[in-house]
Amino acid sequence: MLIRAFVPAHITAFFVPVVSDDPVKSGSLGAGVNLDRGTTVFAGIETGTLRRHVHVAFNGEPAGRSEAVISYSVVERIVPKSFVGEIEVWQYFDFPSGYGFGNSAGGALGTALALGYEFGGTLLELGRIAHTEEVRNGGGLGDVIAQIAGGVEIRVRAGGPGIGVVDNILTDDLMVVAVYLAPLKTRSVLDSDVVRVIDREGREALKKLMLSPKVETMMKLARNFAERTGLMDDELRELARSIESVTSFKASMIMLGRGVFSFVRKKEIEKLRETLSDLDVPYAISNVYWGKPIVGTWNV
Amino acid sequence: MLIRAFVPAHITAFFVPVVSDDPVKSGSLGAGVNLDRGTTVFAGIETGTLRRHVHVAFNGEPAGRSEAVISYSVVERIVPKSFVGEIEVWQYFDFPSGYGFGNSAGGALGTALALGYEFGGTLLELGRIAHTEEVRNGGGLGDVIAQIAGGVEIRVRAGGPGIGVVDNILTDDLMVVAVYLAPLKTRSVLDSDVVRVIDREGREALKKLMLSPKVETMMKLARNFAERTGLMDDELRELARSIESVTSFKASMIMLGRGVFSFVRKKEIEKLRETLSDLDVPYAISNVYWGKPIVGTWNV
Repeated sequence: MLIRAFVPAHITAFFVPVVSDDPVKSGSLGAGVNLDRGTTVFAGIETGTLRRHVHVAFNGEPAGRSEAVISYSVVERIVPKSFVGEIEVWQYFDFPSGYGFGNSAGGALGTALALGYEFGGTLLELGRIAHTEEVRNGGGLGDVIAQIAGGVEIRVRAGGPGIGVVDNILTDDLMVVAVYLAPLKTRSVLDSDVVRVIDREGREALKKLMLSPKVETMMKLARNFAERTGLMDDELRELARSIESVTSFKASMIMLGRGVFSFVRKKEIEKLRETLSDLDVPYAISNVYWGKPIVGTWNV
Repeated sequence: MLIRAFVPAHITAFFVPVVSDDPVKSGSLGAGVNLDRGTTVFAGIETGTLRRHVHVAFNGEPAGRSEAVISYSVVERIVPKSFVGEIEVWQYFDFPSGYGFGNSAGGALGTALALGYEFGGTLLELGRIAHTEEVRNGGGLGDVIAQIAGGVEIRVRAGGPGIGVVDNILTDDLMVVAVYLAPLKTRSVLDSDVVRVIDREGREALKKLMLSPKVETMMKLARNFAERTGLMDDELRELARSIESVTSFKASMIMLGRGVFSFVRKKEIEKLRETLSDLDVPYAISNVYWGKPIVGTWNV
């Protein structure tokens, strides 16, 4: 039996980490956007073997337990202890890992949904498992809950699925441009002194966004956050300005990767493509993904 | 400018009314399913008139303020006091009103989303306005929050959007059959002695469903709830049995309408259609609507 799950890529615009002893109460406040590309997980479940085997692969390449701690942990929490057979989890990512597209959470949530589809569990229960393993193992704090919500999202109360609250900005006809230059180690940023500034600036941005919950406001606040926290460097700033020269919104830094994102109207896309081609940078233009993650049996 | 919103029809399987002085804290616990048919709202906004005019229409027929109290209240809360111009709200329902398909909430939420798209507000803010007006004016208690969640839903914590919590059962390839015989006045049921039984049986059903969150369990518990509360009469019971004779799930009463619903596998549909045609009853077979309500500009 083959089950497929799709989880959108999630870009964080600004955030406030909220860490509690209980991983389900840990999470983040902030805002971001889900894309119609992201993580696709295929789960193959075969009984009839004599032993229990679990295999995880990233983009077709087998991943050992040390490389895929979160995914293996999710599998072990969902597949009953008594199950004997073969579990294969194939995770495919539309964006590179470590660049701030929520691949880790996408893999965790996609795996949880695909296996939960067979072994049981509700959307929030499975989401909490993915969230908990993300938090425990140093993945994202807010990606899972944001991906479950979909859309242009505002995390108004921190916590895992069922505890945190995610709101949505209404929008259509806007696409998202993401330029991704290099990965960034989240941990190296969040362990440093910048955390206090992030907390203050993130809360301030959230308060202002709720007073004017629009994409335009979100991007202004995101840019402001990126600047004030000192996370945005000259190269990213220049890239942001190039994008802004042909679009209607502020561009800001992808939290957290060395990249820039913004929103773009359909009529601006051609000009934007020209600009980005001239700069010779890797980029993608995607639709906003408004719905919830999808899971179902996969008929080849 | 024309804006379109779609809100799924919502059938309640079992419920527990939770009423508080604060409408946002009022709501319901329970379970149900959202369908891919429901309520479509078109909102036309024209400036340039000298006075402020608001028009609401149900299925193309103008509806006065006394007929459409909830919709007019929603409009007044979202359109700024200072707005001068013409607001037209056209609500189209795929199912008849009063039969338990959440038309009232669909109209309220669809109106809120369509107008909020232009005048501002987040999904949860607009959802709370629709929910509050539903509660204040005797519409449903749990429809709005269930419709925002989509899917086969379990209301695990009562309250309006952002306060109540809705979980989802994972399912695909199942369709929903609904047979609708006649409307039922919710108020006539909920004002009577049956409320205490509903509270007890509803809580019991919810507890059991969370132990085994599957469609199969939900339908068994729904039927049990309908029987124990005395809401299901002989005619509905016989209809349920006819449906069960050709499908894999228990059938139960639509809460609240004189009708019956169940889930059906695609391969069972032909047989089911024959059975229902023989009985000569009005029915619809729909897909489960998994996503959130949709809103956007409408280009003719």
